[in-house]
Amino acid sequence: MTDITMIPGPIEFDPEVLSAMSHQSVAHNSPQFVEVFGSVLTDLRALFKSTDPKAQPFVIAGGGTLGWEIVGANLLKRDDKALVISTGFFSDAFADCLKVFCDHVDVISAPAGEAPSLGEIETALKKEKYNLITLTHVDTSSGVVIDIKAISELVHKVSPDTLVVVDGVCSVGVEPISFDDWGLDFVLTAPQKAIGAPAGLSISMASPRAVAKVESLEKIPVYFGNLKKWLPIMQAYEARKPAYFSTPAVQNVYALQVALKQILHNGISLDQRFENHKQVSDKIKKQINDWGLEIIAKPGLGAHGLTCIYLPEGVTLPDFLPKVAAKGVTLAGGLFKGINTKYFRFGHMGVSAVDPKRDDVDRTLKAIHDSLVEAGYKC
Amino acid sequence: MTDITMIPGPIEFDPEVLSAMSHQSVAHNSPQFVEVFGSVLTDLRALFKSTDPKAQPFVIAGGGTLGWEIVGANLLKRDDKALVISTGFFSDAFADCLKVFCDHVDVISAPAGEAPSLGEIETALKKEKYNLITLTHVDTSSGVVIDIKAISELVHKVSPDTLVVVDGVCSVGVEPISFDDWGLDFVLTAPQKAIGAPAGLSISMASPRAVAKVESLEKIPVYFGNLKKWLPIMQAYEARKPAYFSTPAVQNVYALQVALKQILHNGISLDQRFENHKQVSDKIKKQINDWGLEIIAKPGLGAHGLTCIYLPEGVTLPDFLPKVAAKGVTLAGGLFKGINTKYFRFGHMGVSAVDPKRDDVDRTLKAIHDSLVEAGYKC
Repeated sequence: MTDITMIPGPIEFDPEVLSAMSHQSVAHNSPQFVEVFGSVLTDLRALFKSTDPKAQPFVIAGGGTLGWEIVGANLLKRDDKALVISTGFFSDAFADCLKVFCDHVDVISAPAGEAPSLGEIETALKKEKYNLITLTHVDTSSGVVIDIKAISELVHKVSPDTLVVVDGVCSVGVEPISFDDWGLDFVLTAPQKAIGAPAGLSISMASPRAVAKVESLEKIPVYFGNLKKWLPIMQAYEARKPAYFSTPAVQNVYALQVALKQILHNGISLDQRFENHKQVSDKIKKQINDWGLEIIAKPGLGAHGLTCIYLPEGVTLPDFLPKVAAKGVTLAGGLFKGINTKYFRFGHMGVSAVDPKRDDVDRTLKAIHDSLVEAGYKC
Repeated sequence: MTDITMIPGPIEFDPEVLSAMSHQSVAHNSPQFVEVFGSVLTDLRALFKSTDPKAQPFVIAGGGTLGWEIVGANLLKRDDKALVISTGFFSDAFADCLKVFCDHVDVISAPAGEAPSLGEIETALKKEKYNLITLTHVDTSSGVVIDIKAISELVHKVSPDTLVVVDGVCSVGVEPISFDDWGLDFVLTAPQKAIGAPAGLSISMASPRAVAKVESLEKIPVYFGNLKKWLPIMQAYEARKPAYFSTPAVQNVYALQVALKQILHNGISLDQRFENHKQVSDKIKKQINDWGLEIIAKPGLGAHGLTCIYLPEGVTLPDFLPKVAAKGVTLAGGLFKGINTKYFRFGHMGVSAVDPKRDDVDRTLKAIHDSLVEAGYKC
């Protein structure tokens, strides 16, 4: 039995996606690759449910973290004001990144498992005129999903000039997102989570308003992540013409193409995919609760692509994780400040959750159960 | 017969390297991957012929271009002074990148095929106190290789505080580099050229002086390429401990591991590898000259991993390149300002040049010959 990686990214990848990673070398400006890259950009529009031709997808070699920098450097000026809605480690790190580019970054935080309320956000938006708000759709450290649709509506109502930026690293492909309809201005993500392709790319989607902001800036304070440089490149590739700024990660883009095709062109609608993920997530969370374990996310706030679970009293991570690993399952430790040693994270995105031919979730639940029993917990 | 990519990067990759690209998913902090990443960092020291434990290799997800930004953001302050030695398009683009971070960037250029002389560089170094000099070892637009050993010696003699930075994107793995012995402070490169692994990583090596400069800076003006963030990560992985700043491109690192093993642990010394590349390059250049074609690089300045060749009078790129492509060989057009439509580029790095089981170079020479004949040129 093969070992399985059940952390909240990198997730298990479909064999066809992995096979595309070893595509033979092709020139980055060859007709074959231009077609592949172009189709990826077009498919990303569908993934984000965006039909506005003036919205702009980007795929750039780099880590998911590069997406934060792209936001900070391209959508904020030094004297702008940004508001960060934090539900954990990654939201806070996003704020740290923005502070490199902007002198005024406020953060509204919540205790582990909770989320700032609409009321708190409204108060902040009324007190200060923010140029940009960031919403970490799912914070991978807490497993909390926030209602970005409701928050975006609120922002458009009380502070219509504020750009709505979403960190969708752990949400795109598993949680519903309607880029145009929800009035989002920028969503950044990465392939190695619910999209299901290997790490190494920063993926993002910009609204016409966001593109206009980039174009309005006299000086972008970075080079590699400068969207003014990338905009004509992405437009060219999507129009099936080669263009050059920096060599793309050719093989990773091939793999992304396959992953997107599997999500978008497999006869199952995006909404059905989200529903399937939700059912798997509900089943996992019910089982965890039935064993008497506590989930960090409060009811109604649990993300559908991962579950963060407190260890029972007396069981420690250095004891528990190797026991699970010995059963061929990799889980992740904690990251949320103050409680990071007290919980573990179980990722259930992509093929592991929604490919009916795979039993990764059941194997993982059994590995968790048996390891807890071995550690002396009764469940 | 498979099509072959004979541009100056991405090059043809060995099947074992490509196979490693489709390695099954593993957690970025798993013992397996920590071992792989650690061994890559250690092997990079060998590739750079560096034995100083205080020198520091870095491998970061991103394009080769990211390496320029890392230099600009981590080794230059806004009011520092930088000198760029330019032999073409990529040297000039490096200068453009540095200007984002530094207000004083001077460029010494040379006509196509030539290189600034040691005398010119010495004069500049004596006229102005530069904090940093950049040397594009091989400019991929002109096919010119410069004598970085001699220039570094000169810099250390006349301006010992100046950091010596080398763009080795098109040189590491094909041109000799002795990082410690030559007193280099920073070499940046990418896997898709003479190292022979797919694009998607920025690879670099920093001297203790360069690391000290990074550590001395109060504020690094970028986030993703901030070496202060990456330094502890690289040190941890090389000590075979996991650490996290941004998810590495796991599969690309697996492929890089195989490529480095093939270069370093195959029974052929690095020096012999360079000599083998030189012999192939000499053979190509002689054949090109024998056909009456002109090489852009002046005698003695020809790089050993690519050859840039003027088209004969009356033959155009839009006519010539598709004729070559029809024979299953991809070559590249020109990039050097003013002459970009007048020449083509033939890459001969890595397995295509030095794997005796492959006939890529002979196939390419024949495709060039036959295409020229078809286009009406007698050779």
